[in-house]
Amino acid sequence: MNAGFSFNPLLYLVTDRQLSLGRPLAEIVEKGVKGGVTIVQVREKDLPARSFIEEVLKVKEVLDRYGVPLIINDRTDIALAVDADGVHLGQSDMPCRIARRLLGPGKIIGLSVENMAQAREANEEDIDYIAISPVYTTSTKSELTRGLGIEGLKKISAVSRHPAVAIGSIGKNNAAAIIRAGASGIAVVSAICSSPDPERAAAELLKEAIKGRDLKTPHK
Amino acid sequence: MNAGFSFNPLLYLVTDRQLSLGRPLAEIVEKGVKGGVTIVQVREKDLPARSFIEEVLKVKEVLDRYGVPLIINDRTDIALAVDADGVHLGQSDMPCRIARRLLGPGKIIGLSVENMAQAREANEEDIDYIAISPVYTTSTKSELTRGLGIEGLKKISAVSRHPAVAIGSIGKNNAAAIIRAGASGIAVVSAICSSPDPERAAAELLKEAIKGRDLKTPHK
Repeated sequence: MNAGFSFNPLLYLVTDRQLSLGRPLAEIVEKGVKGGVTIVQVREKDLPARSFIEEVLKVKEVLDRYGVPLIINDRTDIALAVDADGVHLGQSDMPCRIARRLLGPGKIIGLSVENMAQAREANEEDIDYIAISPVYTTSTKSELTRGLGIEGLKKISAVSRHPAVAIGSIGKNNAAAIIRAGASGIAVVSAICSSPDPERAAAELLKEAIKGRDLKTPHK
Repeated sequence: MNAGFSFNPLLYLVTDRQLSLGRPLAEIVEKGVKGGVTIVQVREKDLPARSFIEEVLKVKEVLDRYGVPLIINDRTDIALAVDADGVHLGQSDMPCRIARRLLGPGKIIGLSVENMAQAREANEEDIDYIAISPVYTTSTKSELTRGLGIEGLKKISAVSRHPAVAIGSIGKNNAAAIIRAGASGIAVVSAICSSPDPERAAAELLKEAIKGRDLKTPHK
């Protein structure tokens, strides 16, 4: 990782323009960061590369001011183009070892895992974190997926050698329980992007995440 | 460009799995190359990166045997991942200067242009060729676009400092006229991918392209 920032996945914002109530990404991100977001992933599944880069550069301008790392979903070329702090990869995206080769050792690489087998495979990879999803049943992605539950999250994070962030319908009501179950961070989309007050939403989530961390048993 | 190959855009195959009648890309490509294809662009608009890389590696194995360059459509990260010979960019893809920075000076970069203004802008870019499209009305891409015609192709290629390949419903009946009009190459999709005999289709196209080149006025 870069010397310029610390990697803290405690409150991990994943952007979604469709869920941002028409507000610019950079605005959501700035409010989120003011409220306590510790890392931001820009996810754009349908935007052509040129517009994607333009969007990301606006977000990066904000994050650079606050010293918060920027992660790009899937597109290692976009990450390289804007000199982002890393990429987040899904199981069908570029293999982690190739992304590591292209990005170099100084960047953050995260990998989505959905079960124990994928978490064990991820232990073999030179990555910085895993994202366990979905913890709860979610419809943020196009398909509806049944949640792993707190028990599933516990089991998967327990076998992982990497810090785990949890994603999937996480809000202030379950954030503490998720961190307590073994996650190093909560990743949210709509809880911040769709909030009428993203700064306050982030602050409330952060408070709950910290509460969960304080409640963790000492050996975790 | 790499020292390992010569860049000859005379018969430029752009792949399309949907138009390949269920045959594997690597098979179409090998037959095309046997018939005279001089450069191959793999275009995948919907495939996740991991599958995209797997497809490309199969094609690359063939092309490496024949010494024919491999170009990747849009995705500079995929090009880097497989060490392709270059990328082909559209007007909404990553800006050429960024792709050049990521790929380095040794790779081929091509840019699609659809009018005189874009061709003039392309003259400012450190690229290796332009692709002028569509010469004829085409429905290979999702939308139907009105063709530039031979006159449009002539005008656009005349203002370009880069070699131009023409694309858009090109077949053996118009290949010679297109080269004669100023193009350095013809780019085809369905004329080879959808042919029951891609090798023969390529050979016929090459013959026509060479005929067109021989008919060119000496100053072109």
